Amino acid sequence: MKLNFMTQTAPGANVLRLKRLGIDTHHEAVVYMRADCEVCRSEGFEALAQVKVSLGPRSIIATVNMVRGDILALDEAGLSESAWKALGAAEGELVAVSHPEPLVSLAHIRRKVYGHALNDREMLEVIEDVAGERLSDVALSAFVTACAGDGLTEHEVVALTRAMIAAGERLEWGSRDVVDKHCVGGLPGNRTTLIVVPIVAAFGLTIPKTSSRAITSPAGTADTMEVLAPVDLSITEMRHVVHLEGGCIAWGGAVKLSPADDILIRIERALDIDTEGQLVASVLSKKTAAGSSHVVIDIPVGPTAKVRTREAAQQLATLLGRVGRQVGLTVTIEVTDGTQPVGQGIGPALEARDVMQVLRNEPDAPADLRERALLLAGRVLEFSAKVPRGMGVGLARTILEDGRALRKFEAICEAQGGMRLPPSAAHTWEMTAEFPGTVGQIDNRKLARIAKLAGAPHDKAAGVDFLAPIGTKVEAGQPLFRVHAESPGELEYALGYLKSAGDIIRIDER
Amino acid sequence: MKLNFMTQTAPGANVLRLKRLGIDTHHEAVVYMRADCEVCRSEGFEALAQVKVSLGPRSIIATVNMVRGDILALDEAGLSESAWKALGAAEGELVAVSHPEPLVSLAHIRRKVYGHALNDREMLEVIEDVAGERLSDVALSAFVTACAGDGLTEHEVVALTRAMIAAGERLEWGSRDVVDKHCVGGLPGNRTTLIVVPIVAAFGLTIPKTSSRAITSPAGTADTMEVLAPVDLSITEMRHVVHLEGGCIAWGGAVKLSPADDILIRIERALDIDTEGQLVASVLSKKTAAGSSHVVIDIPVGPTAKVRTREAAQQLATLLGRVGRQVGLTVTIEVTDGTQPVGQGIGPALEARDVMQVLRNEPDAPADLRERALLLAGRVLEFSAKVPRGMGVGLARTILEDGRALRKFEAICEAQGGMRLPPSAAHTWEMTAEFPGTVGQIDNRKLARIAKLAGAPHDKAAGVDFLAPIGTKVEAGQPLFRVHAESPGELEYALGYLKSAGDIIRIDER
Repeated sequence: MKLNFMTQTAPGANVLRLKRLGIDTHHEAVVYMRADCEVCRSEGFEALAQVKVSLGPRSIIATVNMVRGDILALDEAGLSESAWKALGAAEGELVAVSHPEPLVSLAHIRRKVYGHALNDREMLEVIEDVAGERLSDVALSAFVTACAGDGLTEHEVVALTRAMIAAGERLEWGSRDVVDKHCVGGLPGNRTTLIVVPIVAAFGLTIPKTSSRAITSPAGTADTMEVLAPVDLSITEMRHVVHLEGGCIAWGGAVKLSPADDILIRIERALDIDTEGQLVASVLSKKTAAGSSHVVIDIPVGPTAKVRTREAAQQLATLLGRVGRQVGLTVTIEVTDGTQPVGQGIGPALEARDVMQVLRNEPDAPADLRERALLLAGRVLEFSAKVPRGMGVGLARTILEDGRALRKFEAICEAQGGMRLPPSAAHTWEMTAEFPGTVGQIDNRKLARIAKLAGAPHDKAAGVDFLAPIGTKVEAGQPLFRVHAESPGELEYALGYLKSAGDIIRIDER
Repeated sequence: MKLNFMTQTAPGANVLRLKRLGIDTHHEAVVYMRADCEVCRSEGFEALAQVKVSLGPRSIIATVNMVRGDILALDEAGLSESAWKALGAAEGELVAVSHPEPLVSLAHIRRKVYGHALNDREMLEVIEDVAGERLSDVALSAFVTACAGDGLTEHEVVALTRAMIAAGERLEWGSRDVVDKHCVGGLPGNRTTLIVVPIVAAFGLTIPKTSSRAITSPAGTADTMEVLAPVDLSITEMRHVVHLEGGCIAWGGAVKLSPADDILIRIERALDIDTEGQLVASVLSKKTAAGSSHVVIDIPVGPTAKVRTREAAQQLATLLGRVGRQVGLTVTIEVTDGTQPVGQGIGPALEARDVMQVLRNEPDAPADLRERALLLAGRVLEFSAKVPRGMGVGLARTILEDGRALRKFEAICEAQGGMRLPPSAAHTWEMTAEFPGTVGQIDNRKLARIAKLAGAPHDKAAGVDFLAPIGTKVEAGQPLFRVHAESPGELEYALGYLKSAGDIIRIDER
């Protein structure tokens, strides 16, 4: 075929002047244009169209929102804040708006939606466009949904893991063994990382820990750590902390070790779904990108935890191990009890309080949190050639009890930008037992939901203090849990749910 | 459990004054608020949060976009245009913004994403929230994706069909048999409806036809009809036209017979996917809601048509028939040839031109379009007790050839608001044969794609004139097809794709 173009776009015909509207759409890039502007008319754009917006050498794909009012002049365009930043725009600069090349990754997503497996190259092209913020929320949601449940083959999970590693930065730590730990969430208050990292670093291993913020839970480790020290470290800052102290607890999203993962997690959060394949790819890509060679993964199991049965835990453990091997990671799995929350606090500040009690060896520190942390720290220490199998937990206990762990944690906080005090919430409300009895069962999901509705993790001080573990004998009127909120509206919202939620803590009558 | 609220929101604390920003986000309801406003601070809202916006007795669920600039004062809120209309808002009115009740339909969508089948009640709750515009684009995309491929059981398709009927209006036509026809798209230029309806109505049957706009094709029947007459009829107007003429060709979206379907179709269009279950539910819900009792469904089959094999057509036919029976519709299926475009034009105005040539019995009218229309009209006529089986096609031909069909079509156009002339495009470009030979194969999808990139269906005059059906003997330099565009930018965009698309029309050398 031979093509003769009989028309050519006049240079500058599709140019608009930028006006900062300051609209925050989160990650989605949106361009605001007058429906009656020259560009829309000559290019035939309509609302929701995907367009290419270019500013000098940079360009992004954005969704069109038409403006019919007078917040924009005919020759002006606005951008969502994320698009503004991605283009490095300034007030009054000129942008060119044009039809984008059709994205090949959209065709791959369609294939995935129809149940076809993607190969390595296709998965890489999808993840590059995710990381490059070229896909709309509708397309991202379709991809996340198509991968949910058992939507990904093992090969696809490996491909997804590799693609996520390739689409982000990767740290190198020389020839040393680099260790890590990870917990497959779902257990409120399970904040062992803040105890494991200082123990392991105090022993002398390198543990450059990056943690995520909450996906569907009231707090991620990064949310809790942020209460005590800055976690938004750049790669340079993270390197500095690890070289100084042997370990760190940073937010993976700030380090941008896996920017695609952070974007997919935002969609999963909006849908309130976690998917096994993406979970495995998320965890292993971040460990590999952080330069780790060995990792202990904690899978809590319980009827209302993220993983509900031993069989499901075993299936997940197998996938983590197999995919880990294929991307060059040694993985140790620890399946733990997930029948109730760990410690007392659920929510960033409340969990941080529990952690500090353990590190300070306070007598009323939550024993369950301490013992879980020692078990995991012990397994990590056993990656060292100097620590015989079975000796790790005892060694971890010594490092905690003699104060080395606390000093190391304080030093890490200082290196990350300075230790700070957790805030406390202005509004609280207590749920009390209606009759005497024994606590028989806990609905972790509902407890977590209440903490979220109360404002966690966005409001650091919000959450739930869980006061009655399974087996506790309670009197009528004795507090079972306490809801903390920073605003009256959120407390009311949480209590509104409470009214309709049914049993959260089951009391068996005597 | 007993609840004692220790706090209460002061009345009026979460109230903002409306300012019209005029931002068109398509269907998605968005509320724009200052990040530092009293409401965001006291309620803890953040970007992308779902909130309830109330104005007097009306309320909607909207997505929050934060505004940091000065387009809004601290006590002001903006709304997307669709939200503005849904609330019936006026400048300066006060809205209350609060946390919404958690949507139960989101939990159903999650279950569907994880591969569970939804029951009748769950499907109804989802579709009610779709129709009520209470779901975000991310949630809608997850639902569409989870239903794609073979994501729906037959029972779910029946439930979806019934839910779509329940969520919209429903027409009644007394005791008469009401007939209809439908084509399962995918075949460019296949505009038989505009010929079938006047033939059937001229015979005296009732055929209140509602058609869709294009989903992933360059023109839907409603897009083509709109070139010749208004199609945005209200139910009252549609009733009037049908009582007057016995038939109409209206846009189903304007009639709102299935508002949920229209919203789901928008998401399918953004993803460029069609799903079998939703297709069946979409077709049958609209026929039932339009009051039809008998329907002929045309399924064109070809390697690049929507349905590619006889087996797939058979599967779809079976599902249409079975689901039809369960919702009370008599369905006749006609599987037809879908190896190449029908007629010459692809795109609204070009297809309208072909239709008029057939209705006027012009000697160079596309014979393939005429014969297909007569076949389908014949099958529809055979629903009448007065027309013996096998006699329908001959009867249809008589009604076309004696001019009754043309007169009826003109009368329908007048009743719908007045007949008009199709526009023609300012910019055209011809693809010619590089060497002599015989046309061997046509890639319908690529032809359709070019018509879409050239601007169809949004630009009515845009599209492709297809000049060389399979078997045509061509000389070097002879035109194979002609691209029509209303703007230079769009012509260029279409030709840009053409360059990289590979063979569209295969010429076999002599």
